Amino acid sequence: MQSGTNLPRVRDYNQGVILEAIRVEDGISRAEIAEKTGLTKQTVSVIVKRLLEEQLVREAGTMLSTGGKRAVKLKIEPDARYAIGVQIDIDETTFVMMALDGRVIVERQHLNGQGYAPEQLVKEITACIEQLVQDAGVASHKILGLGVGCPGPLNHFQGIVYDPPKLLGWHNVPLKKILEKRTGFPVVVDNDATAAAIGERWIGGAQGVPNFAFIYMGVGIGGGLFINNQIYRGSTTMAGEFGHITLDPNGPACFCGSRGCVEILCAPSVIDQAVQARLAQQEPSILQNTFQEDKDKVDYTLICQAALAGDNLALSEIDLAGWRIGCAAVSMVNLLDVELIVLGGKAFRGVGELYRHKIQQVLDEWLMARDRREIKVELSAAGEKAVAVGAASLVLHELFSPRLSSLTPVEYTA
Amino acid sequence: MQSGTNLPRVRDYNQGVILEAIRVEDGISRAEIAEKTGLTKQTVSVIVKRLLEEQLVREAGTMLSTGGKRAVKLKIEPDARYAIGVQIDIDETTFVMMALDGRVIVERQHLNGQGYAPEQLVKEITACIEQLVQDAGVASHKILGLGVGCPGPLNHFQGIVYDPPKLLGWHNVPLKKILEKRTGFPVVVDNDATAAAIGERWIGGAQGVPNFAFIYMGVGIGGGLFINNQIYRGSTTMAGEFGHITLDPNGPACFCGSRGCVEILCAPSVIDQAVQARLAQQEPSILQNTFQEDKDKVDYTLICQAALAGDNLALSEIDLAGWRIGCAAVSMVNLLDVELIVLGGKAFRGVGELYRHKIQQVLDEWLMARDRREIKVELSAAGEKAVAVGAASLVLHELFSPRLSSLTPVEYTA
Repeated sequence: MQSGTNLPRVRDYNQGVILEAIRVEDGISRAEIAEKTGLTKQTVSVIVKRLLEEQLVREAGTMLSTGGKRAVKLKIEPDARYAIGVQIDIDETTFVMMALDGRVIVERQHLNGQGYAPEQLVKEITACIEQLVQDAGVASHKILGLGVGCPGPLNHFQGIVYDPPKLLGWHNVPLKKILEKRTGFPVVVDNDATAAAIGERWIGGAQGVPNFAFIYMGVGIGGGLFINNQIYRGSTTMAGEFGHITLDPNGPACFCGSRGCVEILCAPSVIDQAVQARLAQQEPSILQNTFQEDKDKVDYTLICQAALAGDNLALSEIDLAGWRIGCAAVSMVNLLDVELIVLGGKAFRGVGELYRHKIQQVLDEWLMARDRREIKVELSAAGEKAVAVGAASLVLHELFSPRLSSLTPVEYTA
Repeated sequence: MQSGTNLPRVRDYNQGVILEAIRVEDGISRAEIAEKTGLTKQTVSVIVKRLLEEQLVREAGTMLSTGGKRAVKLKIEPDARYAIGVQIDIDETTFVMMALDGRVIVERQHLNGQGYAPEQLVKEITACIEQLVQDAGVASHKILGLGVGCPGPLNHFQGIVYDPPKLLGWHNVPLKKILEKRTGFPVVVDNDATAAAIGERWIGGAQGVPNFAFIYMGVGIGGGLFINNQIYRGSTTMAGEFGHITLDPNGPACFCGSRGCVEILCAPSVIDQAVQARLAQQEPSILQNTFQEDKDKVDYTLICQAALAGDNLALSEIDLAGWRIGCAAVSMVNLLDVELIVLGGKAFRGVGELYRHKIQQVLDEWLMARDRREIKVELSAAGEKAVAVGAASLVLHELFSPRLSSLTPVEYTA
């Protein structure tokens, strides 16, 4: 059963719409806001007054309006509020403090050492956040909250992390509750790739794009979906598992329960193994010397460097992974008709353009009705920090984005 | 840029919410509506008054309310309005006249003969609709419009059918415009599987399910998506191509431009060929006699009959197709986290349960986080008529479903 919508909800929704218009335009008059959003000038006026009182926006000089008169230019007040973003990954945790305009004012990395128990990691995170707030020199009342992006499966609404295969020892961890208690900030927990998608929408190239997908590649491969101008989480907040689209149901077994998934065929560690196997066969490569010294030194970072130096063996394996990701992207676009795919995460470091070009090529050649629509593949504006920045954006998004909560009733089984 | 929402839109939205509550419940009081929708009693009262005036709902006796008092029961007036649904398929066109409660009051089939030019087919459709209206004995002012479900790619908003590989001779046909001129009714054109999904939501088992997918199998294989309680069409209204998820990027070339798609591996004509090839190898089967007489007599209908009679050869090929569809469904659910998959279309005639069981089994075994969520696979309530009934529902859906149009801004490139 859908719920009706009432006036307070509409007011919040309209406030979100106006705030987004001001944020995206960087200098816009009340009249222009009314024109762009379809709201009456009176409504815009009332809401802008409130935003000025809350010091979320400011008047920044005048501009020539369409009628030839001078109008007051409105801009977002970037340092009015901040949000903290945390990415928990298998090997390291990344922290950012972000302003309203998406500017990262401080960032920190913390090496985890695989296998940290949740209790230990939470302790470290709490300490790091205290340090981050101190380093940033930001008053805590200006910090809206803490966003956490981490590997799924998890329940976004309850903030419980189930048992991600990539986080050893984690099982039904009520991360939201624990971190709220320890830090005193409101906490939002989301899938890493979903957080990255929100970040891209908030500060990146996806602004104003109604339907897009974020492909995240770190240790594993994930995805985040923006559908009809809303982040899409699915019935149990587990949507977006791009890495678990199968490319070969008769292929190698994946930890997820399926076979031949994108992740089991294309993840960085899989590329390591493939390159090492070919080096063992004496295939020529600038990596041979290192391989003969110590085969384990030939890791993804080195392979990427070799590819960038033009090594054919390294290039061919990255090309193959790009082709496979491209094939899965074709399936995704045929199913979802998104108009933009954004690539982000540290596995694209340096080699992002190699992947981007290959994926774009496969889409241009293989997509259904490819001569009737255009699909763009872009590298994330936030780059390696996509998830941490996205996690901070998540906090802003929860508070400021235009959406009618009544339109997304939520049911979950956990 | 998202648009703001204003009061008339909210009023329509709330009217849709209330009408849906009345339609789904079959006997509900004003107080219950207020409770279920979260709207105030006053708002419910005002809108119900309007619905009564328009004779879309009626008062149907009294019921005991929660407080022990007697309350007036509201029901939909099923014969207040009608919609016509048309499915254009490669071999036949199906017509239905549907009442507000989803009851089909008249239905007709018309054989096309493949290769009908669009002009000829439109002429036939127009004549059939005139006959249908006459047979139904319904006054034309009670007919809200005409919904058409046909193979894609097409542009839903412009009502232009591009060049579906399954409709020979069709190229950029402005079907909506032509049919509106010929019939005098408002016309809505949609992808066949999208129409079927709307039908399932309107009359079928998907009522109240926020996220579900419809898998349509007729001559080809398509899909329709309901996302966050809204039909999802994508950026260029080409979403839902479940049949063009690839299961093997090194597999046979598909007409869509990709390789090893669900459709090229599982469509009924592909099953025909696989069975015929095995019969030619002298594999034992109750189909051998017919095959020896005339190999072309061994078609999908006969293969389904053989499978139902327990023939191992026929069963194994349908099982394989079901397994493949199931594998693609695993990818789709990992990506979209829908909670229900509905199967419909004439290729499921008789053998629907064989497919349903297999697809459910693959999902139960292969889905990520399968122990944390439940996914149901069901046969369409509308069965073979899914698309025609869906096309009629499309008309009702466009007019009566709760949605804020401002939330689905549309951009298309054609």
